[in-house]
Order: sequence, then structure tokens, then C-alpha cells
Amino acid sequence: MRAVNFCAGPCTLPLPALQEAQAEFVDFKDSGMSLIEMSHRSPEYEAVHTDAIDRLRRLLSVPDEFEVLLLQGGASLQFAMVPLNLLEGETPAGYVVSGSWGKKALADATHHGGAYAAWDGASHSFTRMPASDEIDVWPGSRYLHVTSNETIHGVRMVEWPDTDVPLVGDMSSDYMSRPIPWERFDVVYGGAQKNLGPAGLTVVFVRRATLEGTRRDLAAYLRWDIHADKNSLYNTPPVFAIYMMGKVLAWVESEGGLPAMENAARARADRIFRVIDESDGYYRSPVDPASRSLMNVVFRLPDEDSEARFLTEAEQRGFLNLKGHRSVGGIRASMYNAMPMSGVEALASFMDSFR
Amino acid sequence: MRAVNFCAGPCTLPLPALQEAQAEFVDFKDSGMSLIEMSHRSPEYEAVHTDAIDRLRRLLSVPDEFEVLLLQGGASLQFAMVPLNLLEGETPAGYVVSGSWGKKALADATHHGGAYAAWDGASHSFTRMPASDEIDVWPGSRYLHVTSNETIHGVRMVEWPDTDVPLVGDMSSDYMSRPIPWERFDVVYGGAQKNLGPAGLTVVFVRRATLEGTRRDLAAYLRWDIHADKNSLYNTPPVFAIYMMGKVLAWVESEGGLPAMENAARARADRIFRVIDESDGYYRSPVDPASRSLMNVVFRLPDEDSEARFLTEAEQRGFLNLKGHRSVGGIRASMYNAMPMSGVEALASFMDSFR
Repeated sequence: MRAVNFCAGPCTLPLPALQEAQAEFVDFKDSGMSLIEMSHRSPEYEAVHTDAIDRLRRLLSVPDEFEVLLLQGGASLQFAMVPLNLLEGETPAGYVVSGSWGKKALADATHHGGAYAAWDGASHSFTRMPASDEIDVWPGSRYLHVTSNETIHGVRMVEWPDTDVPLVGDMSSDYMSRPIPWERFDVVYGGAQKNLGPAGLTVVFVRRATLEGTRRDLAAYLRWDIHADKNSLYNTPPVFAIYMMGKVLAWVESEGGLPAMENAARARADRIFRVIDESDGYYRSPVDPASRSLMNVVFRLPDEDSEARFLTEAEQRGFLNLKGHRSVGGIRASMYNAMPMSGVEALASFMDSFR
Repeated sequence: MRAVNFCAGPCTLPLPALQEAQAEFVDFKDSGMSLIEMSHRSPEYEAVHTDAIDRLRRLLSVPDEFEVLLLQGGASLQFAMVPLNLLEGETPAGYVVSGSWGKKALADATHHGGAYAAWDGASHSFTRMPASDEIDVWPGSRYLHVTSNETIHGVRMVEWPDTDVPLVGDMSSDYMSRPIPWERFDVVYGGAQKNLGPAGLTVVFVRRATLEGTRRDLAAYLRWDIHADKNSLYNTPPVFAIYMMGKVLAWVESEGGLPAMENAARARADRIFRVIDESDGYYRSPVDPASRSLMNVVFRLPDEDSEARFLTEAEQRGFLNLKGHRSVGGIRASMYNAMPMSGVEALASFMDSFR
């Protein structure tokens, strides 16, 4: 029986994508070998590679002015590559510290350029995103870095900051669940292991004009311009993860594309927040209603004992990975694109009956 | 029918490993989900992670003084991380430029420290490895970087350089086919996509004492010490590639471990070199006999027309990916651990009959 998996990532993937990959795993298209045994320069793999990039471009309406890079190392390596590529000397760059991920991005960037906190939500315990007029962008800043969705704190940047400097966005946890306003961004990046596919792949979009000004005095793997010139085949790419992403994106297209994903995300989150809001305070969301995540619904029960019982009973019913991140506690239901509404309805019913 | 795949990497993998992975791909151990949908903090994945590391330690007799890191970005990212972690200011480090890979390692390192060529085989067209007394290690060098096997030029470092400074070794293409003299090394690294598993995983061994002196003023992903402290779970690891490596290593153990792999590698290479050496000059190896690779047997025919016909006829018989790298031309038979002797015998017979 298929589990109902609320894991924050890696996370539930579309069953048809998994089944197709299984069927052709040992013998890929009658080639007599697995895709993972093939040269990354082979026509078979190049077709997979191109297909994955084309689907990303179509689904996210990526303009021609942007390059698509398929890299490794997760968002964490981009925490280094963003400042390494974009900052020279002491050129400053602002960071919106909206939760654990924004905090890590800033801490990493300080080692490679003049990064500063343009807003810090720590004093609000990371329960909301800032309004534009709260963000302090220093003159001469190269970019403002934002985290579109904080998986641990369950807060979402609903409106993008209104600022003169280009945005750089970590969209790891809500990629492919909302449109991207490309005109505002120089760079968008994220790990694949939520809405795009398995772990081990990072998708980076960089504006072509931006690449003209990136640093060249870096080892080749750290340079976005080299990956762009080589169509992400500078070195051996993470073949299997790219292949799986292609399968996941084919499923997204078959389901109706980005608008369908966005509607489904809203429906899932609304359903659980309705239970919370109508529970007479039994379930409490610490998050400001205006910043509620559609991917990671974080909530508390009246006390930790109840939370422990909730988790135990939920697991007995096959609802897995509902425990909040160890740094904040409580409950977290992560509901990415492949989470079916039936799983959400079942959780909602359980929450009602548990109360 | 199973192809006979002489690809230089990604490359042929053990069939039992592929079949096992296929069987449990959609539903991992009756969990109701695929391994690639699971949290990297789950007990199921942690068992996979630990198993893979334990097998590496056992098979390569890794001493306790070394940490095992499972990273991403290939050897290419280590071309950056080696100097970033080990070099401060203008501290020099020597590089043995023994082929395309050694050359790239040096070029990348020059951006992140005082790297220099301690020997350069370009004047010999990279047809041999240096003797120890040809290598010029500058006083005060932090390390001497070596490439144990050059996949493109088909040359192998049979004897490790005799020098006072610690060695750092890129062993991407002959990992798990020869013992590693740990006492000589501070760091050994390599991409997994030859003898260890699929692309998307890099295995790095670092001496614990070395980690005490590595740089801390880097973004977290670039720091070996953080990956070591977190047992390679600082961020989401490449789950599937690590899992597949575990399966491949289980097969290596079932076949007799490292000694069996080394013997098989020698038998495969000897068989093809015998055809070459006994062909009255029809087949010619450009490589100095003392530096012949056991993994990548590079050879030429009397002229390029014959080479083209050879490749066409070979492919018709199911011998795939025998074309030499585009930068050097000719023929290259890459024979990694999972290449069965029967495939090698078949190629040898074809070579005899083609002549």
C-alpha cells in the first residue's frame, strides 16, 4: 500500500514517474543497458537531458534571456556560488533572513563578499515575511537575496520585495508550485528534492546578461558561465536525477502544468488551515496568516504530550513524517506537488477526530 | 540482450546490483514508498548511508585516521575544494600534470592558491607517468597532487611519487581496483561513476589530522570539516547514488573484494595488450609500457579510415563506446570492474579477426 508521506524533502513523487523509471531501469529503451551505465555524451542521454530542460522552460515560462543550469551540491553549494559569481571585493549584497535557510545563505555569503542582513525575522521567531518597506537595501548592493518559502518555519514570501536591485531567489521548496516573475530576478535556484525530483540535482536559472559580468577567476565547477556555455555538460551531470526530473515534469504537464500545481497547492494548504482555524484554538499555527506557506503547514497542539500522541496515532494510520523540524518542534505537514488531495483529506479527518 | 559497454564513464555496472535496485525501486522494503521519496534523516536511509560507508571502509582498508565523505559535484568540484581547504595565502602546492585531468586540476587550483606544475607530461604527449626524480616539488609545498589514472590518455601511475610532502590523489578512474597506500596520502578523492556506481556522487577520504588545519572561512558546503562532522548529512546527500554504490560494493565483496578486482583488471588489460603487442604493429599503443592503464586501453590502427571501419564493425557486433576521446582520437576500451572477462575475450577475438 502506498504511504501518505508528509516528508519535507526528499518527498513523495508521482507514482507513474516511479513506475516508468522502474520498468526501464535495467534495460533503457532496448539498449541492453541501464541509463545510469550510459555515457553522458550519448545520443540517448542527450535526449533525456534536453527533454528535462525543455520541460522546465515550458512549465515555468522561462524567457530566452535566462540560461538553465543543472548542477549538483544542492542549494547549499549555491549559497557559495551566488556570492562567488556575483560579488567582487566588498560589493555588498542584501539578504532577507526569513528563517533557517535565509540565515544559512547569509552566513555562507559573508565568507565570499560583503553580505549583510537587509531584514531579519529572528525577533519575530521567523513567523512572517517582511513588507517591502521593512527591508533595508544598502546603496550599491549587487542583489537582494530572498528565500521564497522557509520549509522549517512554514513561512512564504507571497509578494516579492519591491526594490531597485535585482533579486536572487532560493526557491528550493516551492519551485514549480507558483509562477516566477522573471523580470525581477537575475538568478533563481533550488534543490530538486521537493517538487522536481530526487535529491542530487540543483536547478539554477541565470539571466544571460548577468553571466557577462560573473567572475572568471574561479575553478571551473564554481563558474555559472562555464556550465551555461557547456549546456550543463561541462562535467558528468547527475544523470539519474535529471532523468527522474524529466519524468516528474512530464507528470506535471499531464496534470495541467503550473496553474494546476498552484491550485492544488492552495487547496491542500487551505484544507489543513481550515481544520486549524476551526479547532477553537486546539491546533495553533504560529505563522502570520499573510505569510502562510502552501507547502509546509506548521502547527502546534496545546502541549508537547498531545503532540507526541498525535504523531504516534498519525503514524499508526499511515501518515508519515509529520514531526516538525527538530529546531522548532511541533507538527509539520509538508505537501508538495505529488501529494494527492485524498491524503490531505484523510489527514484533515484524522485531525478533527483526534481533537 | 546485455550490451558490451566499453564506455569511459558512466559505465557498465554489475547486473545483480541493477536488478535488485529495480525490484525495490517503487516500494522500498515494504515502506509504501521509493527510497528516493524518503527523508535523508529516516532510519531506512541512514541504514543505507551507513552500509555504503562501512563497505567502502572494509573494501579499501581505510584506516580510522581517515574520514569518508560522500559529496556531490564530481572530481571537478574537488579541483576547487582541495586548494580551498588546504592552501592559505600563497602556500604552494605541486601538481603532476599527467594528462587532461591533471591539467584541469592544476588550472582550477591556480585560482585558489599557489599551485604549480611539478611535472608536465605535455612534451611527451601524455604517454607516460613521471619517475619520482623528475618531479620538482618546491620547498614549503603543502601537498603534491597526482592523478592515479588518466582516462583520456590511458596512462596509470604505477608507483606513487617518492616525496616528503603528503600526496593528494584524484583516483576517479581506478578507485576500487588497486590498494591505496594510506600512509602516503592526506586526501584521496574521485567521482563514483566508474567503479563505484552512478554519476552524481563523489567519494572523498580525508585524514582527520588534516581536517584540523583546513580553512574555516568558506561557505559550509565547501568545507570538508563540516561534512566530516555531519557524517556527510550536512545537507541532503545524493540518496540514490549512495544507495546504488552500496549495491555495487556488495557485489564487489561477493566477488572477492579488492584483490579480486585488481586481478580481474590486470587480466582484462593484459588480454587486450596481448592482442596489440602480437599484432605486428597493426595495433599500436601510444602509451609507455611502464605506464599502461589497466582501466582504459588506448590504441591506434594504421590509419583513421581503418579506425572508422573498426568502430563501425565493432558496434555492429555489440561492442559499444570504443571511440577514443575527441581530444586524442583513436580507440579506447574502458574496462571497469563490472566488465566481464567474456566481453574482453569477445573484443580480443574481434580485434584478431578484424586485423
